Amino acid sequence: MKKIAILGSTGSIGTQTLDVVDMHPERFQVEGLAAGGNIELLIEQAKRYRPKKVSVGSKELAETVAPHLPVETQLFYGKEGLVEVAAGTDADTVVTAVMGSVGLESTLAAIEAGKQIGLANKETLITAGHIVTARAAAKGVPLLPIDSEHSAIFQCLNGEPRERVMGITLTASGGSFRNLTREQLKEVTVEDALKHPNWSMGSKITIDSATMVNKGLEVIEAHWLFGLRYDQIDVLLHPESIIHSYVEFNDTSIIAQLGNPDMRVPIQYALTYPDRLPSPAKRLSLAQASELHFREMDMERFPCLRMAYECGKMGGTATTAFNAANEVAVARFLRKEISFLKIEDIIASVLEAHRNEDEPDLEEIARCDQESRQLAFSL
Amino acid sequence: MKKIAILGSTGSIGTQTLDVVDMHPERFQVEGLAAGGNIELLIEQAKRYRPKKVSVGSKELAETVAPHLPVETQLFYGKEGLVEVAAGTDADTVVTAVMGSVGLESTLAAIEAGKQIGLANKETLITAGHIVTARAAAKGVPLLPIDSEHSAIFQCLNGEPRERVMGITLTASGGSFRNLTREQLKEVTVEDALKHPNWSMGSKITIDSATMVNKGLEVIEAHWLFGLRYDQIDVLLHPESIIHSYVEFNDTSIIAQLGNPDMRVPIQYALTYPDRLPSPAKRLSLAQASELHFREMDMERFPCLRMAYECGKMGGTATTAFNAANEVAVARFLRKEISFLKIEDIIASVLEAHRNEDEPDLEEIARCDQESRQLAFSL
Repeated sequence: MKKIAILGSTGSIGTQTLDVVDMHPERFQVEGLAAGGNIELLIEQAKRYRPKKVSVGSKELAETVAPHLPVETQLFYGKEGLVEVAAGTDADTVVTAVMGSVGLESTLAAIEAGKQIGLANKETLITAGHIVTARAAAKGVPLLPIDSEHSAIFQCLNGEPRERVMGITLTASGGSFRNLTREQLKEVTVEDALKHPNWSMGSKITIDSATMVNKGLEVIEAHWLFGLRYDQIDVLLHPESIIHSYVEFNDTSIIAQLGNPDMRVPIQYALTYPDRLPSPAKRLSLAQASELHFREMDMERFPCLRMAYECGKMGGTATTAFNAANEVAVARFLRKEISFLKIEDIIASVLEAHRNEDEPDLEEIARCDQESRQLAFSL
Repeated sequence: MKKIAILGSTGSIGTQTLDVVDMHPERFQVEGLAAGGNIELLIEQAKRYRPKKVSVGSKELAETVAPHLPVETQLFYGKEGLVEVAAGTDADTVVTAVMGSVGLESTLAAIEAGKQIGLANKETLITAGHIVTARAAAKGVPLLPIDSEHSAIFQCLNGEPRERVMGITLTASGGSFRNLTREQLKEVTVEDALKHPNWSMGSKITIDSATMVNKGLEVIEAHWLFGLRYDQIDVLLHPESIIHSYVEFNDTSIIAQLGNPDMRVPIQYALTYPDRLPSPAKRLSLAQASELHFREMDMERFPCLRMAYECGKMGGTATTAFNAANEVAVARFLRKEISFLKIEDIIASVLEAHRNEDEPDLEEIARCDQESRQLAFSL
């Protein structure tokens, strides 16, 4: 019986994590659930899984939730509540699926408490990879990736030591605009952007796929997760998204992980590793897929990916600035305040103004994040 | 320093094994070499690697070889010589790359002597899989596959227990005639057949690729090597031969091994497992490959594959009869005595006449082999 806590239980990763729990009720026990504002679903989840602790975004929400919880469930709220669910239960594994920088603090709390981390919060490694990986290593706590590309790499590595690894390649579908020229990109709308061919996902990440920012963030995460240099991390255009990513070993042998797009597979693997359990995901038939295509990544066509590599190599607060600028720019594009290509302009301008700080602590990271956001809003 | 002996050192696998040794001279020491009739090359190899023991096919050949060997090298010949090189040196690993049933006896001798087996001799598992796997298990001796498909599966499994495996898929280029209909196959010549698109290999195995007998034999070998049922072993047409084979796990996750065709990679992996060393094989660029294609295997189009599955499931001496009938039929086709489609007719007729014996001992296997060959010659 594996005990788990889920930070962000009402979001896409959170609900799919509970799908996995539902498939193997004899294997999992839900110790804690934390949500932001979707209290209706949280109440439903609390009734169903009867966790010891739940947390919601604010005191007001907590007051609304309180009368509906099972008697044995303790209620918390806010940042402290999130930390309570992350670190204050008997969970063996904490799935960190909240969005934003609030995920970082709770992830660190879970690591301090010796929990295994099922890592879905991006900020954790993008902004504080040096801190998080150092603390996880010190505590002997594994960071188990939930993202499909990183899970693919993790599965392909399967414990092989780094010195046998030549490099890894993250595949990228190329997003909704992969067949457009930069000239054509000038005209694209929010509606055009939100038609992603392979994975159904939120609008933020769909835009990040089209700009290739998402892949850039994955490159940075891969650097921290797998302890690889940036020149060992490659990105390949693969429109079908069937090969999720692969590892090249020093004998030229490539080990790849393939499957239909279904987040329940990497989520489950993070929860059951090193074991594997049956999954209701649709089995992949390569005969049915019939053809797979690959194209070299073009850094001119996708300047955001180039900038992500540059920030990653620079280290320090540069990746925080990159991520913050992008978040604001994408929000502005989704509100139709700016054009699609303005997203990369804003990131480039924020990075130009950014003064990098090496080995930043959490406070310096937070300050850089704030400053970058302010600048990105004003551009 | 790993000590190795090579049975069949002058053949394709043997010479490529020595290529691997040349790349890592600090890692390997050649303890024994056995060849059939290519004594010129064997003498050269003996002078270069200074093995403790060598063996040649016959007493006459041994007499010719004797004056040219280093003084410290002992000379043997015939079946006993092969067993001496297989089992009578300090080798840790014996590469069994001789062809034919003579490879079986020497492989069993090496297993008895506790050697790891780098398995390239097909007959070992096709005719006596039940005996060889039982003895290897009893001795705790690993059978490390050298064939590219089986090495791929071995690498993808990477120690994962069988209960996590849904099944495996061996890829098949489809051979020289993959785009011809059965009607068109009536007319094909030996010359047509020997143009294999991806791998350069001997004429026997090139014909076996075109008939799909080769893949059928690989299915049977996979059954024994990996302890899988036949309904867990699939074959997929993949003309580019870039995905060498793959494993599907019970969570629908597929792990595949990819690379350019170069036998030195699987040979080296068998010699260095679980370690990996640099290889001079050409690195694979999927961007350059650009497209991969897959087609379901058609058992009507390739009846030899269907027969191989049937023999495998039947067990006993059926696989020996299948292999023996095919060897004779292919030799007759290469001598232009029979048409291409007559190969499968001969196999079918031999199998029809075959009376299966369960759990045969070595003598029964040898008798079945002889009888099947005689019948195949006469048809």
